Amino acid sequence: MNYKQAGVDISRAEDALARIRDRVRATKRPEVIGDIGAFGGLFRLTGTDTVLVATTDGVGTKLELARLLDRHEGVGTDLVHHCVNDALAMGAEPLFFLDYFSTSRLEPEIFARVVGAMADACRAQGCALLGGETAEMPGMYAPGAYDLAGFLVGGVARDKILDPANVREGDVLIGLPSSGLHTNGYSLARAIVAKRAEMEERDERAALGAPRPELRGGTLGDALLAVHTCYLEDVRALRAAATVRSIAHLTGGGWEGNLPRALPGPLGAVVARDSWTVPPLFRSLAEWGRVPDEEAFDTWNMGIGLVAVVAATDERAALRALPDAIRVGEVERASGPRRVRWS
Amino acid sequence: MNYKQAGVDISRAEDALARIRDRVRATKRPEVIGDIGAFGGLFRLTGTDTVLVATTDGVGTKLELARLLDRHEGVGTDLVHHCVNDALAMGAEPLFFLDYFSTSRLEPEIFARVVGAMADACRAQGCALLGGETAEMPGMYAPGAYDLAGFLVGGVARDKILDPANVREGDVLIGLPSSGLHTNGYSLARAIVAKRAEMEERDERAALGAPRPELRGGTLGDALLAVHTCYLEDVRALRAAATVRSIAHLTGGGWEGNLPRALPGPLGAVVARDSWTVPPLFRSLAEWGRVPDEEAFDTWNMGIGLVAVVAATDERAALRALPDAIRVGEVERASGPRRVRWS
Repeated sequence: MNYKQAGVDISRAEDALARIRDRVRATKRPEVIGDIGAFGGLFRLTGTDTVLVATTDGVGTKLELARLLDRHEGVGTDLVHHCVNDALAMGAEPLFFLDYFSTSRLEPEIFARVVGAMADACRAQGCALLGGETAEMPGMYAPGAYDLAGFLVGGVARDKILDPANVREGDVLIGLPSSGLHTNGYSLARAIVAKRAEMEERDERAALGAPRPELRGGTLGDALLAVHTCYLEDVRALRAAATVRSIAHLTGGGWEGNLPRALPGPLGAVVARDSWTVPPLFRSLAEWGRVPDEEAFDTWNMGIGLVAVVAATDERAALRALPDAIRVGEVERASGPRRVRWS
Repeated sequence: MNYKQAGVDISRAEDALARIRDRVRATKRPEVIGDIGAFGGLFRLTGTDTVLVATTDGVGTKLELARLLDRHEGVGTDLVHHCVNDALAMGAEPLFFLDYFSTSRLEPEIFARVVGAMADACRAQGCALLGGETAEMPGMYAPGAYDLAGFLVGGVARDKILDPANVREGDVLIGLPSSGLHTNGYSLARAIVAKRAEMEERDERAALGAPRPELRGGTLGDALLAVHTCYLEDVRALRAAATVRSIAHLTGGGWEGNLPRALPGPLGAVVARDSWTVPPLFRSLAEWGRVPDEEAFDTWNMGIGLVAVVAATDERAALRALPDAIRVGEVERASGPRRVRWS
């Protein structure tokens, strides 16, 4: 099974973006730094050293799992953490967040669980929840379904922006463990779970709630709804201890879709797949869905949620600062159209 | 017919917000100015005189009409203009915009029409399109349906912030004409159109496409899809000519839902309903749907899209600066729970 069969075709998204790229570029103001494709947009405010970083994300079909299992708090937290990590990838710290919540019939209790959790996550990350929009659109969504979008603005001193142009051949890749799928690749995961449930002759909810030896006695539901890790504290500690050149947040598109975004044009990465243990959730999903390795690593983070590119001389300092971090590879010259080479 | 019967219950939204208000307030950072409920959130960046204004909006079920009539450009423009006007209501000019586009199956051609139009609208308003998120969520939306959210950050010098606290009894209300429903009250309008189509024994598309004498030979489709007016140039001209105390953007909740947001606690507004001609679209919808007057003015803008509160001594200067503007009323002490009194 692959992501496309599950209904998500990344080439369609690329085609869509290609069609509007020139019109988007034409909106550029002198304050805008850089081009389309980074983890966040940069805007240098006149009269200050602070550069604003803006990013927007959704939670994808993890929402459908939260709804199926009546566990709505996690997706609110996921959304905030996703946005914070994207800002971190540009070198910024979060300043403020806004949310968009849309549904066919607003259920105040569900809304309060989702958006309340966002507020709590904002508070925990020191970020103001500055506004939001609640849309009630009869007939647009299936009963009980809702969609979420988050917008975050962060700030970074101009000389602290993480710019992939600074990355050098031989820099090391420091990986930080993920808690699970975070917020990407859920359409594929859910298609696999649905097939598995059918095979096991139970409904999807029962399949999600059953303790599984493959997951060390845990349930698929718990593993799939694990909250997107927020890397704010880790990145602070890392930047205090080592020269961080750039950061990739491994989201939609997995490794190949994200690691190159933290590297300059001619460079690629060589990653040692055995440098970390792929968590059981990913292994089980790949096995049940007969997902080829390349497809799995192009869709999911496979256990590493964020990769920091660090000067080679700082490798030990980086690993000392973050006991959970792992050296997963290094930067090399790219040798083909795919810029992540597995070793 | 009323908004609630059409599936949108504003009291549910108020209930939902009340449940999270304290948790949202707890996220406040020292840079945040003001409280929940303004047209945009204010964030004072350290080390600069510029205050950031952040706002987020959607287009509501106007999206469904755009889809039905295969006219997707307008809703992209609507979203940008809606956000720009909210920033204007705080005194700010637009700096940058981000969009969220979600659908079950991404159609690059439709996407390019919608988001391309957003880019063009951003460019026309001098606003950078700084980023966006495209979400493909199989099964979440009906075939062909999509949802949009926009997020805009504007900037305003601290002493140019429009603060309702500055409004005085006797200030005059200057109304600017709307092009139609803008982006609010479409669920009610669509329910009325569906009923009307049934009465006329044609399908909804035919009812939307028929020339109508009530609309001076125009069609309902054209009238309902008229693009949300952007008031950037008008507000610039107005502020150059007159002392503007505050601004209300008449969106969801109509007059009573928005005009009081531009007034301090004890003050209300007296508005002369005959000071402008309610456009035929509103009159026809209200008549066909037997919508009571109060309900119509609580849901739709009824022909005035933005109200500026101006010092009484500047009334003539304001009207000279904006030939289309109308004096619609003045500020008085509020006399009851409803703060807009009709005369």
